[in-house]
Amino acid sequence: MANESTEEALAVTDADTQHRRRRFLRNGVTAVTGVLAGGAGVSAAVAQSGSTAKEAAADNTLTVPPWTKQPGAVVGSRPYGTPSQFENNVIRHLRKTDKQYSSSSTRSPLQELDGIITPNGLFYERHHNGIPDINPVEHRLVVHGLVDNALSFTLNDIRRFPSHTQIYFLECSGNPGYTVYGKTAAEANGLVSCAEWTGVPLKTILNEAGLNPEAKWVIAEGADGAGMTRSIPLEKCLDDAMLVYSQNGERLRPEQGYPLRLLLPGYEGNMSIKWLRRLQVADQPVHSREETSKYTDILPDGKAREFTFVMEVKSIITSPSGGQQIGGKGFHEIRGIAWSGKGRITKVEISVDEGKTWQPARLQMPVLSKALTRFLFAWEWNGEPVVIQSRAIDETGYIQPTLESLIEVRGVNGTYHNNAITPWRIASDGKVTHARA
Amino acid sequence: MANESTEEALAVTDADTQHRRRRFLRNGVTAVTGVLAGGAGVSAAVAQSGSTAKEAAADNTLTVPPWTKQPGAVVGSRPYGTPSQFENNVIRHLRKTDKQYSSSSTRSPLQELDGIITPNGLFYERHHNGIPDINPVEHRLVVHGLVDNALSFTLNDIRRFPSHTQIYFLECSGNPGYTVYGKTAAEANGLVSCAEWTGVPLKTILNEAGLNPEAKWVIAEGADGAGMTRSIPLEKCLDDAMLVYSQNGERLRPEQGYPLRLLLPGYEGNMSIKWLRRLQVADQPVHSREETSKYTDILPDGKAREFTFVMEVKSIITSPSGGQQIGGKGFHEIRGIAWSGKGRITKVEISVDEGKTWQPARLQMPVLSKALTRFLFAWEWNGEPVVIQSRAIDETGYIQPTLESLIEVRGVNGTYHNNAITPWRIASDGKVTHARA
Repeated sequence: MANESTEEALAVTDADTQHRRRRFLRNGVTAVTGVLAGGAGVSAAVAQSGSTAKEAAADNTLTVPPWTKQPGAVVGSRPYGTPSQFENNVIRHLRKTDKQYSSSSTRSPLQELDGIITPNGLFYERHHNGIPDINPVEHRLVVHGLVDNALSFTLNDIRRFPSHTQIYFLECSGNPGYTVYGKTAAEANGLVSCAEWTGVPLKTILNEAGLNPEAKWVIAEGADGAGMTRSIPLEKCLDDAMLVYSQNGERLRPEQGYPLRLLLPGYEGNMSIKWLRRLQVADQPVHSREETSKYTDILPDGKAREFTFVMEVKSIITSPSGGQQIGGKGFHEIRGIAWSGKGRITKVEISVDEGKTWQPARLQMPVLSKALTRFLFAWEWNGEPVVIQSRAIDETGYIQPTLESLIEVRGVNGTYHNNAITPWRIASDGKVTHARA
Repeated sequence: MANESTEEALAVTDADTQHRRRRFLRNGVTAVTGVLAGGAGVSAAVAQSGSTAKEAAADNTLTVPPWTKQPGAVVGSRPYGTPSQFENNVIRHLRKTDKQYSSSSTRSPLQELDGIITPNGLFYERHHNGIPDINPVEHRLVVHGLVDNALSFTLNDIRRFPSHTQIYFLECSGNPGYTVYGKTAAEANGLVSCAEWTGVPLKTILNEAGLNPEAKWVIAEGADGAGMTRSIPLEKCLDDAMLVYSQNGERLRPEQGYPLRLLLPGYEGNMSIKWLRRLQVADQPVHSREETSKYTDILPDGKAREFTFVMEVKSIITSPSGGQQIGGKGFHEIRGIAWSGKGRITKVEISVDEGKTWQPARLQMPVLSKALTRFLFAWEWNGEPVVIQSRAIDETGYIQPTLESLIEVRGVNGTYHNNAITPWRIASDGKVTHARA
């Protein structure tokens, strides 16, 4: 059944111009009677398809709603727009159980989002000593150490260099840890987001200073109260690393490092140092707090893996997902996101039978390297309890693992780099929960 | 000189890993002395490169700024983020001279934006009777007319269909009219924006209702106080037309048609009916007010062109642009956006000599069909007065015209579809103005 549905969906969304008559919801929408006379035709089918009674009661088919009978808010009333009042529950998720909120995080509400762009207001956050409020006119970036000429850049200086724009995801390496937290997609995996970034290739700035032959690492330091510091291999700095000042068209938000951020595509998020004030070129790493006591991976034998930079392939189904209630049996599109710090996603597979069999999902084009990829899977639910899950494969051939196979190798001492499959259970009443909870 | 700079910029931004030593700003950034001792090295070169005296005075090279000495705002203090307080001048531009603001527009601040994504808060607006505040639970879309089954859809119904996501620009056909208005890029051409849209192919919904053989047009009606209505050829409806509910990942904003909008890629913006409540399938167009007395093009002989749907190829330099003040002579990157309602941009050319010669700009990849394309051009300014301008070419071979050649064909009676080149004049003091003002 699912295979047949997949083909049907693909056929209908192909860009042909035939008048195809394949239908999806069939009995799921309201048949209209007396439309042209202005009468409302309310069908019991609406309730059957999962719409709430309230919605059915509010049916106003081709009657004139109140907002059509009067002028709306005047043009220009919101010089910088905000979401509808009816969407004010769509916010970043803050874990309520932290002991303090100077070093903490908020999660993107993945289950509410479509496409691959995360709007700036909902981009996930991870701060180590709060969010500084920096005046860009007073901010400087200093490049020094093993260079021909130590340099100090204003923001205007940085913005004058040849620019580059690219869509990349960012993910916290603690997304989501190894113990199940929370019930929703946001809670389970919301420390990942994706945006279009604009800035300067880091290579350009290092060339401007002139690298000495013994240069091997770059130590990046933030201007926040944590003085967040990480060591970056020079090879990455001369590859796709950027200094970014804009995100999704506008200047970075304070939570994302305004006015200047290091961006290391595919690497764990904490290394993309926010509020960047210093790049020291060195011949060895500095072994800062955040790459020794934190952001290392404790193995079963007690030893730690250090410098585990790359975020490996992952995916999660965002709809249907934990906390949601799906309509009755029949057609549903399973939707989610996949990403890999190693490059492009080549395949996402879906299982609707507890992982026994897997079928390919449709990938929304264009599929971009080190960016989120949206996947879609046409599914007919028979109304019986089921576990649904996704697994992604990237261009290196790496297949997203189960939590069991990951723990078999890494043990349970670690906190970071859990890229395991997230399974969701759907009960016969349509209620969706985390299958591991 | 300019050619040499172009090659230099391309070479440096290529993804190689050689330690190139080509430098851009040369004397334009501050050489640091005594960095490791914590002393500040302020060079007169900063002032020479165009940084303000205030910035030079505020230099704090590797001294510890106040925001590093204390914790920042607590994590989660902005559940839905907003821009920095230092960016509160980056807003949509409202023309101050309108007689009323029920039917008016606001413009995207193009000169402040990077990349191709317009953030939702800054997306241009054009409303015909204000912005309605619609409760999505009460909203319905009715499809009727020449169909097998008239249907009424709730938002939940619409969201259940197989989804599609794509980045498209939208542009008002009155962008910018034929008389020069304003001084900045926003004022001159800011009725264009670009976003990632998610929704359902319109074809899917029409198939669900079942089209009769005599169906030729679809009449789309909005739920705003204007009852905005346009006739759409069926061919477009079965091609790339969409019903969209999300923009840049989150739900549409009220100003963009929340909760449901028709999206007609490449067509004039007013046809992408916002707050969509009705699609009537018909055998002929309805000749509504907005396609007879408005949104038609009056030719020199007094006759009107009706149904001029497609937005033809255009580009504009956004930096340097009117109202800006560029730094002294030396390296500058000319940046701008190009787009075509007919498909992909294949080339953008820059002239820095009053239009006598043209040189190719670099196009930021990926170049997407019917989306904004960012172009970049490395330029050495010799400090003398100059006029800079861009012209775009699309995959059909159409070349963006000058205003003179456009008026030669269309005359000056019309209001819409001015896709002419915008020239900027740079004075010897670096001040940029509209060359036609």
